[in-house]
Amino acid sequence: VGPGDDAAVFRGRPGTAAWAVTTDMLVEGVHFDLAWTSGEDLGWKALAVNLSDLAAMGPVRPALGVIALGLPSRLPVSFVDGFYRGFDRLARVSGFVLAGGDTVRADKLTVSLAALGEVPRGRRVLTRDGARPGDVLMATGSLGDAAAGLEILQKRPKGSRASSERFLIRRLLRPVPRLDLAGRLAAVPGVTAMMDSSDGLWRSAVILARASGVGLRIEAERLPVSPALRAWCGENGRDAVDFSLAGGEDYELVLTARPSAARRIEAMKLARPVGRAHPGRGVRAMMNGRPRSVSHEFEHFSQTA
Amino acid sequence: VGPGDDAAVFRGRPGTAAWAVTTDMLVEGVHFDLAWTSGEDLGWKALAVNLSDLAAMGPVRPALGVIALGLPSRLPVSFVDGFYRGFDRLARVSGFVLAGGDTVRADKLTVSLAALGEVPRGRRVLTRDGARPGDVLMATGSLGDAAAGLEILQKRPKGSRASSERFLIRRLLRPVPRLDLAGRLAAVPGVTAMMDSSDGLWRSAVILARASGVGLRIEAERLPVSPALRAWCGENGRDAVDFSLAGGEDYELVLTARPSAARRIEAMKLARPVGRAHPGRGVRAMMNGRPRSVSHEFEHFSQTA
Repeated sequence: VGPGDDAAVFRGRPGTAAWAVTTDMLVEGVHFDLAWTSGEDLGWKALAVNLSDLAAMGPVRPALGVIALGLPSRLPVSFVDGFYRGFDRLARVSGFVLAGGDTVRADKLTVSLAALGEVPRGRRVLTRDGARPGDVLMATGSLGDAAAGLEILQKRPKGSRASSERFLIRRLLRPVPRLDLAGRLAAVPGVTAMMDSSDGLWRSAVILARASGVGLRIEAERLPVSPALRAWCGENGRDAVDFSLAGGEDYELVLTARPSAARRIEAMKLARPVGRAHPGRGVRAMMNGRPRSVSHEFEHFSQTA
Repeated sequence: VGPGDDAAVFRGRPGTAAWAVTTDMLVEGVHFDLAWTSGEDLGWKALAVNLSDLAAMGPVRPALGVIALGLPSRLPVSFVDGFYRGFDRLARVSGFVLAGGDTVRADKLTVSLAALGEVPRGRRVLTRDGARPGDVLMATGSLGDAAAGLEILQKRPKGSRASSERFLIRRLLRPVPRLDLAGRLAAVPGVTAMMDSSDGLWRSAVILARASGVGLRIEAERLPVSPALRAWCGENGRDAVDFSLAGGEDYELVLTARPSAARRIEAMKLARPVGRAHPGRGVRAMMNGRPRSVSHEFEHFSQTA
């Protein structure tokens, strides 16, 4: 599997183990703000976003990686110590080992991690191009939380928070890569395509539809919304559907499955149906059978070119 | 082989193929200046410095990698096109494939590549910690060229050049990773340690000495100086030994070998003796038997923390 998917998959000689490899770069002021991101948060997240790319390939076991850090001279050493603490916490529970790296000077704090995972023998990986008309579009977890967390922090970087706010902020700063779910989903026959939701469900659907050569209809009334997002939206006069449809950085999995596989996945509580693939092209969002507009206010999340 | 060497080496299950992995980050204004670095130059060099790290492990065949690019919005698309042209030129002759990547916004152009190479079955890799007292310190190619090339560009970024200047500048902008030499050197029994000279011979010697727990004496009169560096130094009243002793970015190989292996390597014209390992600690530079000071003017090269 070459460029254009969440991770590339390769093996040495035929018959040897296959590996998945991915990279992500996080830049201060673009992907994170030091006003509300601690070293621990950033270390955790740098690894989490890469492990999420590995998870998006299905049955991948995190193995090891190398990190390149661009450090401004003004950055306190304690921040870097915290970075490695946060990184190590997630690395330990994920079975990931940091094998080496490069540290250089930079004006803006820049983190670039490359992560490798092993594909267990005989397991297939899930790419973005396998969706077929009639497939059910599905998503894991809840959507829109991280975008709400960012809005909370941008309005008020510090201070005491309600528990729903703490949950939403944590979803932004400490995303949990869906490695376990990914392996279980990939083991269900009839799952046809998968990727992560780093830039939001809408962007994922656009990418999946294009890669697979199908059209996708999102049924916005079925989007999984967390109780915290629903509560916060109610208190702040916001529409939870806007967040769950287009908000990014939740690092959930977005997948397509044949209808029978989708029923099985729903029964196993691994993911929920959020739409359907059809012949044709493009992505439409519907709400109770009527066209639903997509908010563009979250496009600052979509920072990948 | 874990952190602290030019590359990390790993394998999946016992008996499967071993891989080497490395990463390097290049930041605008720190590692390169757009006043004299074209897209082609930068693409070539981004790959070259990573392949040099793989070469420093010995018998590693470049395989594939992932790239993260931080692009300022002011950067012309033609620069990025040039970057990939320069990258591809070296990739093609090296058997390297770009498998994927991440492109993000950044204030300063930032390139972070992670490169993987395969270690042929049954071949040993060369780390930095194997030097023993009595070993001969050796270097490939010529040293100090790239540092002179940088000085030429800093004084006069553009304009017509003498052929010696063109050679020195090319050594800075288009380094050639010593992959072939590395494989041949690693095949000679009695080679004990190896690394690349990215931060200059002096820094390499300090790192090798510390990792191996030996002292190293550099015999400065034996340092390999190119005819171009000698000519340019003569015309500009500079001392070629200053450049060859401490100038960085030549991306040559620095190694230690048992005396009999060193004689064989010299006879094969793979590398030249430049010093000797002894019991004890630290690195000294000697010139015709007398202590020789090391210029600190090249420390801007040593940008890795």
